[in-house]
Amino acid sequence: MRIYADNAATTKMSKAVIDIMAECMGETYGNPSSLHSSGQRAAEVLAGARESVALTLGAEPKEITFTSGGSEADNQAIRSAAGWGKKVGKRHLISTAFEHHAVLHTLGKLEEEGFEVTLLPVHEDGIVRVEDVRAALREDTALVSVMFANNEIGTVQPIKEIGALCRENGVIFHTDAVQAAGHIRIDVKEMQIDMLSLSAHKFHGPKGVGALYVRKGVPLFAFIEGGAQERGRRAGTENVPGIVGMARALELAAANLEENGTYEGALRDALIEGLAKIPHSRLNGDREKRLPGNVNFCFEGIEGESLLLLLDAKGIEASSGSACTSGSLDPSHVLLAIGLPHEAAHGSLRLTLSSENTMEEVEYMVEEIAGVVEYLRGISPVWEELEKGERRHVIQ
Amino acid sequence: MRIYADNAATTKMSKAVIDIMAECMGETYGNPSSLHSSGQRAAEVLAGARESVALTLGAEPKEITFTSGGSEADNQAIRSAAGWGKKVGKRHLISTAFEHHAVLHTLGKLEEEGFEVTLLPVHEDGIVRVEDVRAALREDTALVSVMFANNEIGTVQPIKEIGALCRENGVIFHTDAVQAAGHIRIDVKEMQIDMLSLSAHKFHGPKGVGALYVRKGVPLFAFIEGGAQERGRRAGTENVPGIVGMARALELAAANLEENGTYEGALRDALIEGLAKIPHSRLNGDREKRLPGNVNFCFEGIEGESLLLLLDAKGIEASSGSACTSGSLDPSHVLLAIGLPHEAAHGSLRLTLSSENTMEEVEYMVEEIAGVVEYLRGISPVWEELEKGERRHVIQ
Repeated sequence: MRIYADNAATTKMSKAVIDIMAECMGETYGNPSSLHSSGQRAAEVLAGARESVALTLGAEPKEITFTSGGSEADNQAIRSAAGWGKKVGKRHLISTAFEHHAVLHTLGKLEEEGFEVTLLPVHEDGIVRVEDVRAALREDTALVSVMFANNEIGTVQPIKEIGALCRENGVIFHTDAVQAAGHIRIDVKEMQIDMLSLSAHKFHGPKGVGALYVRKGVPLFAFIEGGAQERGRRAGTENVPGIVGMARALELAAANLEENGTYEGALRDALIEGLAKIPHSRLNGDREKRLPGNVNFCFEGIEGESLLLLLDAKGIEASSGSACTSGSLDPSHVLLAIGLPHEAAHGSLRLTLSSENTMEEVEYMVEEIAGVVEYLRGISPVWEELEKGERRHVIQ
Repeated sequence: MRIYADNAATTKMSKAVIDIMAECMGETYGNPSSLHSSGQRAAEVLAGARESVALTLGAEPKEITFTSGGSEADNQAIRSAAGWGKKVGKRHLISTAFEHHAVLHTLGKLEEEGFEVTLLPVHEDGIVRVEDVRAALREDTALVSVMFANNEIGTVQPIKEIGALCRENGVIFHTDAVQAAGHIRIDVKEMQIDMLSLSAHKFHGPKGVGALYVRKGVPLFAFIEGGAQERGRRAGTENVPGIVGMARALELAAANLEENGTYEGALRDALIEGLAKIPHSRLNGDREKRLPGNVNFCFEGIEGESLLLLLDAKGIEASSGSACTSGSLDPSHVLLAIGLPHEAAHGSLRLTLSSENTMEEVEYMVEEIAGVVEYLRGISPVWEELEKGERRHVIQ
């Protein structure tokens, strides 16, 4: 059995999306900026995709800027808000300790450039508190950036409440919705979101394509400079087939949102229930306020990397943290942010499901993971110390 | 007859490229950063594409960073060189007046940030002089950026000579090779290039993918911040199918470089010869040192936009300047840079051929363009003044 359970890293593309992209690559080859018929046909296709993406988010087409992915969208959103802040004398930026690195590293650079950054703590349940955001707000706060759902532990944040708070206070509110878009309901107007980043390959669309929603009236500066594409907001010939693929993938995701959510939620719950039976294991992140497909566990006394490799040999494809940092030996900054001790954070396992997974796969995973954890503990010097009582358990 | 003669704006994708991308989208879905088998398979495919692109340019695989296109590559190259310059106290940047806006606008921003920019003049033949570069070099020059071939008039610059000059003087040399790559021979080592940008959709590859070559030892800072992809040089999940498509397109272009060049050159020459017979017309850019597929003419007394629209109605797809600025009413900065007066620069026509064009198409274009120019002059008040001698011809 081969099971792909790493859908937070990337998803298999839908056949419908591949087909429409192949068709578009063959037929709609014009440059949308060209005045001639081929160019104008491409421009129409692009406009159609923009309308579709906007509609799904509750936005207007002009509020959508296409990017090369979630990281670029995050970089642009934050740099743009900071650029606006600089102009109006607001040099304070608020975010959280467990954001994606596309947000954190950009904030780090801005700190070097003279901005002041407050990273809010994340509570043990993996949820940011609205009152923490409120307490951090200052007269000179330009931006609040809080991710919609966390990429490792899948916890869903109180976006609507933070949106209302920011709107009241005239602060730009950005949310990295890379993990949420296509998986849970998003309505940018109702949730009072000013900027939102998404990435197509996280919902069965193509890699290399994303979008940045920016509410009408909120300033947006170009990040990639050059041609006048995207109304001067993003230079570079538009990736028309990729954008068409993203729009189709988002339409499909939106059309099946509830059904997939219910189905994935049932798989997730069974998986959590099964893994919770492993002694000294712990579910990371709130049990309820999490993405339907996200399961994240720590198993005391083992190394995440060894666990992954043995699971892979059993046909189970999973991850320890985010794929973006999987080459790193540091424990996940997300797990540290929710208060896990280093030794527990090392033994984490993220299983992220899609509607293509089955209950049979879940049963197989529970059984195999239990076996592999037991095996690894059997050869772990740390586990031996725990067993002998020479070391205290950090997970009960 | 429908003729696509706007290959500098974008090209039709090769069927072989579409096929390999569709296959890759279906089968190589893993995230190359993931440790499991699907991820590692994607990482291998990515490594193969990197080797292939490197080989074509005469580079090493580690010297290739994949980007979302030429504009991003240009932005990163220039910002990175400027960032290095700032660190070592070199705040002077040299480029030319007829670069792509991805270069010019980035330099403009850097000027606002405290850098000093020298834009070299371009001679009437559309060629930058090495002695002008030499004369502009200063102790505090960090970067020289000169495009390989111009995107409007197709003139090919003395890259090897500028490369040697920069290497001697310890200055980083970047070239925007977006129009050149896949069309004329490039060898980054022989030409002593430090940084080179390219874009896949200019050589029958996919949109939304490009590459930045950076010579080993030359510092490169991330432009998009976030995950550790591309060895920390470019964050964001790699667009594996797009990169695979680019590599295949570049392989095909390299394999047929001479043959296509000879074929396109013959079409170009016939087209130039035919259009030169139109009275008060002028070929822009050097007759010899130009891309095999590039034809750029000015016709006195007419507006480029009307010309394009009428040609489109006759089935000829062309452009007036670069597609990136085709929404703009300003005359081309390239044509102004080579000394054309405003009134002549307005009546320009760019025809850019590929190996898919035919001599029959060239003959059709010559005939139709002559007819349309005559028609437009017949209704042009400017032409009437020229005819009556109330206005002096700027093109003889």
